[in-house]
Amino acid sequence: MPQAQPTSVPADGLTTRQRRNRALLMVHTGDGKGKSTAAFGMALRAWNQGWPVGVFQFVKSAKWRIGEQSALEALDSAHAADGVGGPIEWHKMGSGWSWSRKAGTETDHAAEAAEGWAEIKRRLAASAHRLYVLDEFTYPMTWGWVDTEDVVATLRDRPAGQHVVITGRNADPRLLDAADLVTEMRKVKHPMDAGQKGQRGIEW
Amino acid sequence: MPQAQPTSVPADGLTTRQRRNRALLMVHTGDGKGKSTAAFGMALRAWNQGWPVGVFQFVKSAKWRIGEQSALEALDSAHAADGVGGPIEWHKMGSGWSWSRKAGTETDHAAEAAEGWAEIKRRLAASAHRLYVLDEFTYPMTWGWVDTEDVVATLRDRPAGQHVVITGRNADPRLLDAADLVTEMRKVKHPMDAGQKGQRGIEW
Repeated sequence: MPQAQPTSVPADGLTTRQRRNRALLMVHTGDGKGKSTAAFGMALRAWNQGWPVGVFQFVKSAKWRIGEQSALEALDSAHAADGVGGPIEWHKMGSGWSWSRKAGTETDHAAEAAEGWAEIKRRLAASAHRLYVLDEFTYPMTWGWVDTEDVVATLRDRPAGQHVVITGRNADPRLLDAADLVTEMRKVKHPMDAGQKGQRGIEW
Repeated sequence: MPQAQPTSVPADGLTTRQRRNRALLMVHTGDGKGKSTAAFGMALRAWNQGWPVGVFQFVKSAKWRIGEQSALEALDSAHAADGVGGPIEWHKMGSGWSWSRKAGTETDHAAEAAEGWAEIKRRLAASAHRLYVLDEFTYPMTWGWVDTEDVVATLRDRPAGQHVVITGRNADPRLLDAADLVTEMRKVKHPMDAGQKGQRGIEW
Protein backbone atom coordinates (compact mmCIF):
# COMPACT_ATOMS: atom_id res chain seq x y z
CA MET A 1 0.00 0.00 0.00
CA PRO A 2 1.20 3.52 -0.62
CA GLN A 3 2.13 5.08 2.69
CA ALA A 4 -0.37 7.64 3.92
CA GLN A 5 0.65 11.23 4.50
CA PRO A 6 -0.42 13.36 7.45
CA THR A 7 -3.67 15.15 6.72
CA SER A 8 -2.55 18.22 8.62
CA VAL A 9 0.62 19.56 10.18
CA PRO A 10 0.11 20.71 13.77
CA ALA A 11 1.54 23.97 15.07
CA ASP A 12 3.20 22.21 17.99
CA GLY A 13 6.68 23.64 17.48
CA LEU A 14 8.14 20.19 16.82
CA THR A 15 10.43 19.42 13.92
CA THR A 16 9.40 16.73 11.47
CA ARG A 17 12.05 14.50 12.98
CA GLN A 18 10.82 15.10 16.52
CA ARG A 19 7.26 14.51 15.45
CA ARG A 20 8.25 11.39 13.57
CA ASN A 21 9.95 9.96 16.61
CA ARG A 22 7.31 10.85 19.17
CA ALA A 23 6.44 7.65 20.94
CA LEU A 24 2.84 6.51 20.64
CA LEU A 25 0.15 5.37 23.00
CA MET A 26 -1.91 2.85 21.08
CA VAL A 27 -5.14 1.02 21.92
CA HIS A 28 -6.62 -2.06 20.24
CA THR A 29 -10.21 -2.47 21.35
CA GLY A 30 -13.52 -3.87 20.09
CA ASP A 31 -15.23 -7.26 20.13
CA GLY A 32 -13.31 -8.81 17.24
CA LYS A 33 -10.25 -10.99 17.00
CA GLY A 34 -6.77 -9.62 16.44
CA LYS A 35 -6.40 -7.09 19.26
CA SER A 36 -3.69 -9.03 21.09
CA THR A 37 -2.38 -10.74 17.97
CA ALA A 38 -1.67 -7.39 16.32
CA ALA A 39 0.01 -6.13 19.50
CA PHE A 40 2.30 -9.17 19.55
CA GLY A 41 2.90 -8.64 15.84
CA MET A 42 4.11 -5.14 16.70
CA ALA A 43 6.67 -6.73 18.98
CA LEU A 44 8.19 -8.32 15.86
CA ARG A 45 8.91 -4.90 14.40
CA ALA A 46 10.29 -3.64 17.69
CA TRP A 47 12.50 -6.72 18.02
CA ASN A 48 13.84 -6.11 14.51
CA GLN A 49 14.76 -2.55 15.53
CA GLY A 50 16.71 -3.91 18.48
CA TRP A 51 14.30 -2.35 20.96
CA PRO A 52 13.85 -3.79 24.45
CA VAL A 53 10.26 -5.06 24.57
CA GLY A 54 8.22 -5.78 27.67
CA VAL A 55 5.01 -7.83 27.38
CA PHE A 56 2.67 -7.81 30.37
CA GLN A 57 -0.24 -10.19 30.12
CA PHE A 58 -3.04 -9.26 32.45
CA VAL A 59 -5.94 -11.55 33.32
CA LYS A 60 -4.55 -14.65 31.58
CA SER A 61 -3.97 -17.74 33.70
CA ALA A 62 -0.35 -18.63 34.35
CA LYS A 63 -1.17 -22.14 33.12
CA TRP A 64 -2.26 -20.80 29.78
CA ARG A 65 0.68 -20.35 27.46
CA ILE A 66 0.00 -18.95 24.04
CA GLY A 67 2.12 -19.58 21.00
CA GLU A 68 3.24 -15.97 20.80
CA GLN A 69 5.03 -16.30 24.13
CA SER A 70 7.14 -19.21 22.89
CA ALA A 71 7.86 -17.48 19.61
CA LEU A 72 8.84 -14.15 21.16
CA GLU A 73 10.97 -15.97 23.73
CA ALA A 74 12.73 -17.71 20.85
CA LEU A 75 13.44 -14.29 19.33
CA ASP A 76 14.77 -13.13 22.70
CA SER A 77 17.05 -16.18 22.71
CA ALA A 78 18.23 -15.33 19.20
CA HIS A 79 19.07 -11.86 20.48
CA ALA A 80 20.98 -13.27 23.46
CA ALA A 81 22.84 -15.86 21.39
CA ASP A 82 23.52 -14.04 18.14
CA GLY A 83 23.00 -10.36 18.91
CA VAL A 84 20.21 -10.03 16.35
CA GLY A 85 17.09 -8.04 17.19
CA GLY A 86 16.36 -6.88 20.71
CA PRO A 87 15.55 -8.42 24.10
CA ILE A 88 11.94 -9.40 24.82
CA GLU A 89 10.60 -10.00 28.30
CA TRP A 90 7.26 -11.73 28.81
CA HIS A 91 5.47 -11.44 32.13
CA LYS A 92 2.04 -12.65 33.10
CA MET A 93 -0.42 -12.63 35.94
CA GLY A 94 -1.98 -15.78 37.25
CA SER A 95 0.24 -17.11 39.98
CA GLY A 96 2.20 -14.00 40.82
CA TRP A 97 4.31 -11.99 38.41
CA SER A 98 7.77 -13.37 37.74
CA TRP A 99 9.45 -10.50 39.64
CA SER A 100 7.15 -10.96 42.67
CA ARG A 101 6.90 -14.38 44.25
CA LYS A 102 4.74 -13.51 47.22
CA ALA A 103 2.93 -16.48 48.68
CA GLY A 104 -0.79 -16.33 48.30
CA THR A 105 -0.96 -13.65 45.63
CA GLU A 106 -2.27 -16.16 43.15
CA THR A 107 -5.74 -15.91 44.67
CA ASP A 108 -6.00 -12.13 44.80
CA HIS A 109 -6.26 -11.04 41.21
CA ALA A 110 -7.00 -7.41 42.07
CA ALA A 111 -3.81 -7.12 44.13
CA GLU A 112 -1.87 -8.91 41.46
CA ALA A 113 -3.11 -6.57 38.73
CA ALA A 114 -2.24 -3.57 40.91
CA GLU A 115 1.25 -4.99 41.46
CA GLY A 116 1.62 -5.46 37.70
CA TRP A 117 0.72 -1.86 37.06
CA ALA A 118 3.05 -0.66 39.86
CA GLU A 119 5.92 -2.50 38.18
CA ILE A 120 5.04 -1.01 34.79
CA LYS A 121 5.09 2.47 36.38
CA ARG A 122 8.56 1.77 37.78
CA ARG A 123 9.75 0.58 34.37
CA LEU A 124 8.27 3.58 32.56
CA ALA A 125 10.00 5.92 35.02
CA ALA A 126 13.26 4.07 34.40
CA SER A 127 12.73 3.92 30.61
CA ALA A 128 13.23 0.17 30.79
CA HIS A 129 11.61 -0.68 27.44
CA ARG A 130 10.91 0.99 24.12
CA LEU A 131 7.71 -0.99 23.51
CA TYR A 132 5.33 -2.05 26.25
CA VAL A 133 2.53 -4.47 25.39
CA LEU A 134 -0.11 -4.25 28.12
CA ASP A 135 -2.26 -7.14 27.01
CA GLU A 136 -5.90 -7.16 28.18
CA PHE A 137 -5.14 -4.24 30.43
CA THR A 138 -8.55 -2.66 29.80
CA TYR A 139 -10.16 -5.26 32.08
CA PRO A 140 -8.29 -4.37 35.30
CA MET A 141 -9.25 -0.77 34.54
CA THR A 142 -12.90 -1.67 33.98
CA TRP A 143 -12.99 -3.79 37.13
CA GLY A 144 -11.35 -1.11 39.28
CA TRP A 145 -8.26 -3.20 40.00
CA VAL A 146 -6.14 -0.28 38.84
CA ASP A 147 -7.05 3.40 38.94
CA THR A 148 -7.82 4.62 35.43
CA GLU A 149 -6.97 8.25 36.28
CA ASP A 150 -3.56 7.11 37.49
CA VAL A 151 -3.03 5.00 34.38
CA VAL A 152 -3.94 7.83 32.02
CA ALA A 153 -1.86 10.45 33.88
CA THR A 154 1.14 8.13 34.10
CA LEU A 155 0.99 7.31 30.42
CA ARG A 156 0.51 10.95 29.40
CA ASP A 157 3.56 12.00 31.44
CA ARG A 158 5.81 9.02 30.73
CA PRO A 159 9.43 9.72 29.80
CA ALA A 160 9.94 10.12 26.06
CA GLY A 161 10.74 7.36 23.61
CA GLN A 162 8.48 4.66 25.02
CA HIS A 163 5.70 3.21 22.87
CA VAL A 164 2.80 1.59 24.70
CA VAL A 165 0.06 -0.59 23.23
CA ILE A 166 -2.93 -1.59 25.34
CA THR A 167 -5.41 -4.26 24.29
CA GLY A 168 -8.87 -5.31 25.45
CA ARG A 169 -12.56 -4.69 25.01
CA ASN A 170 -14.44 -1.67 26.33
CA ALA A 171 -11.49 0.69 26.62
CA ASP A 172 -12.24 3.60 28.93
CA PRO A 173 -13.06 6.88 27.11
CA ARG A 174 -10.32 8.64 29.08
CA LEU A 175 -7.79 6.15 27.76
CA LEU A 176 -9.07 6.59 24.20
CA ASP A 177 -8.83 10.34 24.62
CA ALA A 178 -5.20 10.11 25.72
CA ALA A 179 -4.26 7.63 22.99
CA ASP A 180 -2.53 8.62 19.76
CA LEU A 181 -3.85 5.64 17.83
CA VAL A 182 -7.02 3.67 18.42
CA THR A 183 -8.14 0.74 16.32
CA GLU A 184 -11.40 -1.07 16.84
CA MET A 185 -11.27 -4.72 15.89
CA ARG A 186 -14.88 -5.32 14.93
CA LYS A 187 -16.32 -8.81 14.61
CA VAL A 188 -17.99 -9.18 11.23
CA LYS A 189 -18.14 -12.97 11.19
CA HIS A 190 -16.76 -15.45 13.68
CA PRO A 191 -16.57 -19.23 13.29
CA MET A 192 -17.92 -19.77 16.82
CA ASP A 193 -21.16 -18.28 15.61
CA ALA A 194 -21.33 -21.17 13.14
CA GLY A 195 -20.61 -23.78 15.80
CA GLN A 196 -16.83 -23.91 15.29
CA LYS A 197 -14.80 -24.51 18.42
CA GLY A 198 -11.58 -22.75 19.26
CA GLN A 199 -8.56 -24.60 17.97
CA ARG A 200 -4.86 -25.00 18.46
CA GLY A 201 -2.70 -22.68 16.38
CA ILE A 202 -5.61 -20.30 15.86
CA GLU A 203 -6.90 -19.41 19.30
CA TRP A 204 -3.69 -20.11 21.23
CA MET B 1 -10.44 -13.54 28.90
CA PRO B 2 -12.71 -16.54 29.33
CA GLN B 3 -12.85 -18.43 26.07
CA ALA B 4 -16.09 -18.03 24.18
CA GLN B 5 -18.32 -21.00 23.45
CA PRO B 6 -20.11 -21.67 20.19
CA THR B 7 -23.50 -20.03 20.14
CA SER B 8 -25.02 -22.91 18.20
CA VAL B 9 -24.07 -26.39 17.10
CA PRO B 10 -24.64 -26.95 13.39
CA ALA B 11 -26.24 -30.12 12.06
CA ASP B 12 -23.35 -30.75 9.69
CA GLY B 13 -22.68 -34.34 10.66
CA LEU B 14 -19.18 -33.48 11.90
CA THR B 15 -17.83 -34.64 15.23
CA THR B 16 -16.66 -32.01 17.71
CA ARG B 17 -13.11 -33.00 16.92
CA GLN B 18 -13.65 -32.68 13.18
CA ARG B 19 -15.34 -29.36 13.65
CA ARG B 20 -12.60 -28.16 15.96
CA ASN B 21 -9.94 -28.98 13.43
CA ARG B 22 -11.65 -27.58 10.37
CA ALA B 23 -9.22 -25.18 8.78
CA LEU B 24 -10.35 -21.58 8.53
CA LEU B 25 -10.49 -18.96 5.82
CA MET B 26 -9.95 -15.64 7.58
CA VAL B 27 -10.11 -12.05 6.34
CA HIS B 28 -8.75 -8.91 8.00
CA THR B 29 -10.22 -5.88 6.32
CA GLY B 30 -11.16 -2.26 7.10
CA ASP B 31 -9.36 1.08 7.06
CA GLY B 32 -7.56 0.69 10.39
CA LYS B 33 -4.13 -0.51 11.37
CA GLY B 34 -3.41 -4.07 12.43
CA LYS B 35 -4.72 -6.09 9.49
CA SER B 36 -1.31 -7.33 8.38
CA THR B 37 0.23 -7.12 11.84
CA ALA B 38 -2.39 -9.46 13.26
CA ALA B 39 -1.89 -11.85 10.34
CA PHE B 40 1.85 -11.96 10.98
CA GLY B 41 1.08 -12.42 14.68
CA MET B 42 -0.93 -15.50 13.72
CA ALA B 43 2.20 -16.86 12.11
CA LEU B 44 3.78 -16.88 15.59
CA ARG B 45 1.14 -19.29 16.83
CA ALA B 46 1.47 -21.46 13.75
CA TRP B 47 5.27 -21.50 14.11
CA ASN B 48 4.89 -22.61 17.71
CA GLN B 49 2.69 -25.51 16.56
CA GLY B 50 5.40 -26.58 14.16
CA TRP B 51 3.25 -25.76 11.14
CA PRO B 52 4.81 -24.91 7.79
CA VAL B 53 3.87 -21.29 7.13
CA GLY B 54 3.88 -19.49 3.79
CA VAL B 55 3.70 -15.68 3.68
CA PHE B 56 2.92 -14.07 0.33
CA GLN B 57 3.18 -10.30 0.27
CA PHE B 58 1.30 -8.79 -2.60
CA VAL B 59 1.68 -5.19 -3.78
CA LYS B 60 4.68 -4.37 -1.54
CA SER B 61 7.87 -3.24 -3.21
CA ALA B 62 10.71 -5.72 -3.10
CA LYS B 63 12.87 -2.93 -1.70
CA TRP B 64 10.58 -2.51 1.24
CA ARG B 65 11.44 -4.95 3.99
CA ILE B 66 9.31 -4.87 7.09
CA GLY B 67 10.47 -5.94 10.53
CA GLU B 68 8.14 -8.90 10.59
CA GLN B 69 9.99 -10.48 7.67
CA SER B 70 13.30 -10.41 9.54
CA ALA B 71 11.69 -11.67 12.73
CA LEU B 72 9.82 -14.53 11.07
CA GLU B 73 12.94 -15.46 9.11
CA ALA B 74 14.83 -15.60 12.43
CA LEU B 75 12.17 -18.03 13.70
CA ASP B 76 12.58 -20.08 10.54
CA SER B 77 16.32 -20.17 11.23
CA ALA B 78 15.65 -21.29 14.82
CA HIS B 79 13.54 -24.09 13.37
CA ALA B 80 16.29 -25.11 10.95
CA ALA B 81 19.04 -24.93 13.56
CA ASP B 82 17.33 -26.24 16.70
CA GLY B 83 14.22 -28.01 15.49
CA VAL B 84 11.93 -25.70 17.44
CA GLY B 85 8.73 -24.39 15.87
CA GLY B 86 8.03 -24.80 12.19
CA PRO B 87 9.44 -23.58 8.88
CA ILE B 88 8.37 -20.16 7.60
CA GLU B 89 8.73 -19.05 4.00
CA TRP B 90 8.37 -15.38 3.08
CA HIS B 91 7.74 -14.40 -0.53
CA LYS B 92 6.98 -11.02 -1.99
CA MET B 93 6.12 -9.33 -5.21
CA GLY B 94 8.04 -6.35 -6.48
CA SER B 95 10.87 -7.64 -8.61
CA GLY B 96 9.56 -11.10 -9.39
CA TRP B 97 8.67 -13.74 -6.83
CA SER B 98 11.60 -15.70 -5.44
CA TRP B 99 10.55 -18.87 -7.27
CA SER B 100 10.18 -17.03 -10.59
CA ARG B 101 13.10 -15.00 -11.87
CA LYS B 102 11.73 -14.00 -15.22
CA ALA B 103 13.39 -10.97 -16.72
CA GLY B 104 11.18 -7.96 -16.98
CA THR B 105 8.41 -9.14 -14.68
CA GLU B 106 9.23 -6.37 -12.23
CA THR B 107 7.37 -3.89 -14.39
CA ASP B 108 4.22 -5.91 -14.92
CA HIS B 109 2.51 -5.99 -11.56
CA ALA B 110 -0.66 -7.57 -12.89
CA ALA B 111 1.25 -10.51 -14.35
CA GLU B 112 3.29 -10.81 -11.21
CA ALA B 113 0.22 -10.89 -9.00
CA ALA B 114 -1.33 -13.54 -11.26
CA GLU B 115 1.86 -15.59 -11.03
CA GLY B 116 1.76 -15.27 -7.22
CA TRP B 117 -1.79 -16.57 -7.12
CA ALA B 118 -0.94 -19.40 -9.56
CA GLU B 119 1.85 -20.51 -7.22
CA ILE B 120 -0.47 -20.34 -4.20
CA LYS B 121 -2.95 -22.54 -6.09
CA ARG B 122 -0.20 -25.07 -6.75
CA ARG B 123 0.80 -25.04 -3.10
CA LEU B 124 -2.78 -25.41 -1.88
CA ALA B 125 -3.27 -28.38 -4.20
CA ALA B 126 -0.06 -29.91 -2.81
CA SER B 127 -0.93 -29.02 0.82
CA ALA B 128 2.42 -27.29 1.09
CA HIS B 129 1.59 -25.16 4.15
CA ARG B 130 -0.76 -25.24 7.11
CA LEU B 131 -1.04 -21.46 7.32
CA TYR B 132 -1.02 -19.16 4.30
CA VAL B 133 -0.77 -15.42 4.86
CA LEU B 134 -1.93 -13.66 1.69
CA ASP B 135 -0.97 -10.14 2.66
CA GLU B 136 -2.79 -7.31 0.87
CA PHE B 137 -4.32 -9.82 -1.49
CA THR B 138 -7.61 -7.91 -1.62
CA TYR B 139 -5.98 -5.32 -3.90
CA PRO B 140 -5.08 -7.66 -6.79
CA MET B 141 -8.67 -8.89 -6.55
CA THR B 142 -10.07 -5.36 -6.61
CA TRP B 143 -7.85 -4.36 -9.50
CA GLY B 144 -8.72 -7.45 -11.55
CA TRP B 145 -5.17 -8.80 -11.50
CA VAL B 146 -6.56 -12.10 -10.27
CA ASP B 147 -10.02 -13.51 -10.87
CA THR B 148 -12.07 -13.25 -7.69
CA GLU B 149 -14.38 -16.10 -8.72
CA ASP B 150 -11.34 -18.33 -9.18
CA VAL B 151 -9.91 -17.25 -5.82
CA VAL B 152 -13.13 -17.93 -3.95
CA ALA B 153 -13.76 -21.28 -5.65
CA THR B 154 -10.18 -22.41 -5.10
CA LEU B 155 -10.24 -21.46 -1.44
CA ARG B 156 -13.65 -23.08 -0.88
CA ASP B 157 -12.43 -26.34 -2.42
CA ARG B 158 -8.90 -26.39 -1.03
CA PRO B 159 -7.61 -29.64 0.47
CA ALA B 160 -8.32 -29.93 4.18
CA GLY B 161 -6.11 -28.73 6.98
CA GLN B 162 -4.91 -25.48 5.44
CA HIS B 163 -5.67 -22.19 7.18
CA VAL B 164 -5.66 -19.08 5.02
CA VAL B 165 -5.67 -15.47 6.16
CA ILE B 166 -6.16 -12.66 3.64
CA THR B 167 -5.56 -8.99 4.48
CA GLY B 168 -6.43 -5.69 2.82
CA ARG B 169 -9.07 -3.04 2.51
CA ASN B 170 -12.33 -3.39 0.60
CA ALA B 171 -12.54 -7.16 0.63
CA ASP B 172 -14.89 -8.45 -2.04
CA PRO B 173 -18.33 -9.52 -0.71
CA ARG B 174 -17.88 -12.94 -2.33
CA LEU B 175 -14.68 -13.43 -0.33
CA LEU B 176 -16.40 -12.32 2.88
CA ASP B 177 -19.23 -14.71 2.16
CA ALA B 178 -16.82 -17.62 1.76
CA ALA B 179 -14.78 -16.70 4.85
CA ASP B 180 -15.21 -18.36 8.23
CA LEU B 181 -13.87 -15.38 10.15
CA VAL B 182 -13.95 -11.73 9.18
CA THR B 183 -12.57 -8.93 11.33
CA GLU B 184 -12.84 -5.29 10.37
CA MET B 185 -9.99 -3.19 11.68
CA ARG B 186 -11.69 0.16 12.02
CA LYS B 187 -9.74 3.39 12.40
CA VAL B 188 -10.98 5.26 15.44
CA LYS B 189 -8.00 7.59 15.80
CA HIS B 190 -4.75 7.67 13.88
CA PRO B 191 -1.66 9.74 14.63
CA MET B 192 -1.34 10.79 10.98
CA ASP B 193 -4.58 12.69 11.43
CA ALA B 194 -2.75 14.71 14.09
CA GLY B 195 0.25 15.37 11.86
CA GLN B 196 2.35 12.46 13.08
CA LYS B 197 4.52 10.84 10.43
CA GLY B 198 5.03 7.13 10.06
CA GLN B 199 7.99 5.90 12.03
CA ARG B 200 10.47 3.08 12.27
CA GLY B 201 9.42 0.20 14.49
CA ILE B 202 5.78 1.19 14.25
CA GLU B 203 4.99 1.41 10.55
CA TRP B 204 7.71 -0.95 9.31
